[in-house]
Amino acid sequence: MSETSDDPKQASRRKFLAGAAGLAFGAATRPARADDKNLPPNVAGWTKQLGDGVVARPYGTPSKFEKDVIRRDVPWLTASRESSVSFTPLHELDGIITPNGLCFERHHGGIAEIDPNDYRLMIHGLVDKPLIFTLEDLKRLPRVNRIYFLECAANSGMEWRGAQLNGCQYTHGMVHCVQYTGVPLKLLLEQAALKANASWIMAEGGDAAALNRSLPMHKALGDCLVAYRSNGEMLRPEQGYPVRLVVPGWQGNMWVKWLRRIKVGDRPWYSREETGKYTDLMENGKARQFTFEMDAKSVITSPSPQAPVKRKGFTVISGLAWSGRGKIKRVDVSLDGGRNWRTARIDGPVFDRACVRFYAEIEWNGEELLLQSRAMDDTGYVQPTKGDLRKIRGVNSVYHNNGIQTWALKASGEVENVEVG
Amino acid sequence: MSETSDDPKQASRRKFLAGAAGLAFGAATRPARADDKNLPPNVAGWTKQLGDGVVARPYGTPSKFEKDVIRRDVPWLTASRESSVSFTPLHELDGIITPNGLCFERHHGGIAEIDPNDYRLMIHGLVDKPLIFTLEDLKRLPRVNRIYFLECAANSGMEWRGAQLNGCQYTHGMVHCVQYTGVPLKLLLEQAALKANASWIMAEGGDAAALNRSLPMHKALGDCLVAYRSNGEMLRPEQGYPVRLVVPGWQGNMWVKWLRRIKVGDRPWYSREETGKYTDLMENGKARQFTFEMDAKSVITSPSPQAPVKRKGFTVISGLAWSGRGKIKRVDVSLDGGRNWRTARIDGPVFDRACVRFYAEIEWNGEELLLQSRAMDDTGYVQPTKGDLRKIRGVNSVYHNNGIQTWALKASGEVENVEVG
Repeated sequence: MSETSDDPKQASRRKFLAGAAGLAFGAATRPARADDKNLPPNVAGWTKQLGDGVVARPYGTPSKFEKDVIRRDVPWLTASRESSVSFTPLHELDGIITPNGLCFERHHGGIAEIDPNDYRLMIHGLVDKPLIFTLEDLKRLPRVNRIYFLECAANSGMEWRGAQLNGCQYTHGMVHCVQYTGVPLKLLLEQAALKANASWIMAEGGDAAALNRSLPMHKALGDCLVAYRSNGEMLRPEQGYPVRLVVPGWQGNMWVKWLRRIKVGDRPWYSREETGKYTDLMENGKARQFTFEMDAKSVITSPSPQAPVKRKGFTVISGLAWSGRGKIKRVDVSLDGGRNWRTARIDGPVFDRACVRFYAEIEWNGEELLLQSRAMDDTGYVQPTKGDLRKIRGVNSVYHNNGIQTWALKASGEVENVEVG
Repeated sequence: MSETSDDPKQASRRKFLAGAAGLAFGAATRPARADDKNLPPNVAGWTKQLGDGVVARPYGTPSKFEKDVIRRDVPWLTASRESSVSFTPLHELDGIITPNGLCFERHHGGIAEIDPNDYRLMIHGLVDKPLIFTLEDLKRLPRVNRIYFLECAANSGMEWRGAQLNGCQYTHGMVHCVQYTGVPLKLLLEQAALKANASWIMAEGGDAAALNRSLPMHKALGDCLVAYRSNGEMLRPEQGYPVRLVVPGWQGNMWVKWLRRIKVGDRPWYSREETGKYTDLMENGKARQFTFEMDAKSVITSPSPQAPVKRKGFTVISGLAWSGRGKIKRVDVSLDGGRNWRTARIDGPVFDRACVRFYAEIEWNGEELLLQSRAMDDTGYVQPTKGDLRKIRGVNSVYHNNGIQTWALKASGEVENVEVG
C-alpha cells in the first residue's frame, strides 16, 4: 500500500483500495453516523475498571467470546474417536496461517503422548551407517523454515456422491497451513550414507497405529523435512510432537506423525495405508495407487453454510486455494454456478504449496446466488467440476476430491451445500 | 530445495545443504549408531496403547512437556501488573511467526475484556461524516493480510546503562511477528470524508488507561490497518480484542489496542504517552519527540543465557532481525565481540517490516566466544553498537535501544549477557 511503489502488485492493490473507497455503500451497509441516536455509552464498563494484568495467562488463550471457534468432529463418521478426524473451522479464519490450536486432527490410534527425552528416530535399512537420533541431535542440525499446506487425501471425500455435509469446516476442513521448522530429510539420509540401490523409504510413526507409508527416494532427497516446530513453537501433540515428517504438496497421510523410524529400501512396502486405504477405487473396481500429489483446489469459506450473510449490501466473498504441484496463479469466482467467472483478488503472500487467500467483493441485494471458486496453479492445471471428476473416476473413492464446491446463497442470507452440474 | 530451480536463492540453499551434509560431525556431535548398546526399547509405551481421540482438546494446547515455554514478567520492573509487560520467550521459538499465545503483552490499565457485540469504533473530528462502526461493519469491509513485527519502543530499554537482564526473553522479548487481517485505515477515513485541513489523527483505546497516541495523516492514509485477526483467528484479549491499530514499522505503543476512537485533527495531541512517556531523554536533559520508526535490530536467540550450549561440536547460532524502515537485507554474526564478522544465512520469507530468521552454523570446541549479530536493512542502515548509540544519545532514555547485543559463551556452554566496547 506504499504510495511510492512501482511494483505492479502494489499498483493493483492501490486500484482495489481506490475502488473500494469509492463504493457507494448502500443504506443497509452504511455504518451509523456518529450523530445518530444509537450512540454507544460514552464510556464502556471495561474502560471504567482495571483489567487483568500481565501473565494472567502465561500461555494465552482466545477471548471467551470466541468459544465456538473450535475443531469439531462428525460423530457418525467413524467408529471411534481414536481413529477419526476433527476439522479446522475454516469459516472462522482468514489470512493463510492456521493457528496451531485449530489445525485439524487425523489419528489412526489416538494421540501418542511422547516424552521428548525418550524420543528416538532410527534410520536403517539400505544404509552404510544406521543411525539413531535423539531430539537434541535433531535440534542441533541445520534447519529451514517453510510455510506449507497439509491436506488429508480424504478431504471432501464425503462429497463424491453428492452434497453431504453442510459447512466448509466439514467439507474442506481437513487442511491447514503453518510455518514448519525442521531438518531437511536429505541431510539425515546423507549422514546415514545411502547404499547404491536405495530407492524408497518407509516412514513409521510411534503412535499405537504405528502408521507407515512408503516414499520414493527422489521426494525424500527433495523437499521433505523432519520437522519439530509449527508456527515457531514445538509441534502440538496431535500434530506429531515432538517430530513429524513434512512432505510438501503430498497427501497428509504421508506426513507421518510421532516419527519413529525411517527404513531405506529398494521398493515400496505396500503397507495397509497405501493398499487397503489411500488408494483411489475406480468405477471398474480397480484402484489407482500412489496418487501422492494433492491437485489444485479451492473453497469459499465465507459466505458458507456456517457463515451466512447477515445483511444486504457490500459483501466480501473470501476463500482459500492451494495446490500440491506448485503456486496458485489465479482464482476465479462465479456467482451463478459456473456460467460466468470473475478473477478474484489474491491477497497476502503466495508460497509454493501453501494456502493463498482470495477475495471477491460484491454488492448483494438479496438475490439467490450459486457461489463457486476455481483455482489455477502455475502448472496450468485448472480445478475441475465435480461432474468432470466423476466422469473419469466414478464415485467409489473417498480420496482426492478436488472438485469445485457450490454454495447456494438464499434470499434469507442462509447458505446451503448444493450440487450443480 | 527443488533440484531443478534456477532461482539464485535456491542455488545458494542447495550449496548450504551440500555443505552441511558434508560436515564431518565430531565424535561428541554424532548421533548414535543404530547398532550401539544404547538402543531405545523396541516398542515404546505410547505405541502400546491408544492415545486420546480427536477433539480431546477442541482448541489445542501445547504438550505438557513444553509447560515452561511461556510469557514471563520481571516482577520488580513495574509497580503493578496492570501497567506492566510480559516477554515473548524468543529463546524457545524458531522461524518468524510468533504463536498468538506467546506474543508479549504491554498493558497500561490491564486487559480490557470487550464484548464484541457492544464494540464500537467512532471516527470523528475534522471529517464531514463522523461514523460509528460495529465489529460486523468492519468485518464486512475489504480486508488485507500482512505479516509485520510489533516491537515496544522500550524493548531492550533496561540495557541502556549496561547489561542488566540475563536472557533474550527479557532483553529483547518485547517483539513479536504475526499475520494481521484488517481493513486499511485509509478506507475508513475516506468513508468519513476528511476535511481539507485534516493532517493528524488521534487513536484511543477502550481500556482503563484509554491510551491515546497521535499519528500523522500520511501514515494513517498509508499502510495502517484496523486489524481484528492475528494468525487467522480473532485477536487475543491481551492484543486488543476485538480491534487494534496496526502501524507497520512504528513503535508498539502506537498500535492502539481495544481501539475505540479515531479523532481527526490538524496537529498532534501531545498526550501523556507522547510527552511524559515514549520520548527519548538525551544527555542534556532535552527529549527527542516523535521518534516513531523502529530502527534495524537483531538478536541471537540461541545460544543465549536461557538457551545454553549442551554439547561441543556442530552448533547452530539462530536469531531474529527486523527493521521498521523496510526489509532486512543482510545479517552478520561475530564470534569475537565484533572484531570479525561473517554473513549469516537468512532462511524463510523476508517481508517488509517483518522479522526474519537467520542462522550461522559453527563447530564449537569449548572455546569462549563473544557472540553478536548485526542487522542491515534495505535503506543501507547498519545496526550500531551500544557504545555508538550512547555517544550520541547518552544513557537517560529507556526507548529505542537497537544496539548490538553481546552474549558471552563460556567453556561450560553457559551464556551470559555482557558489555563489549
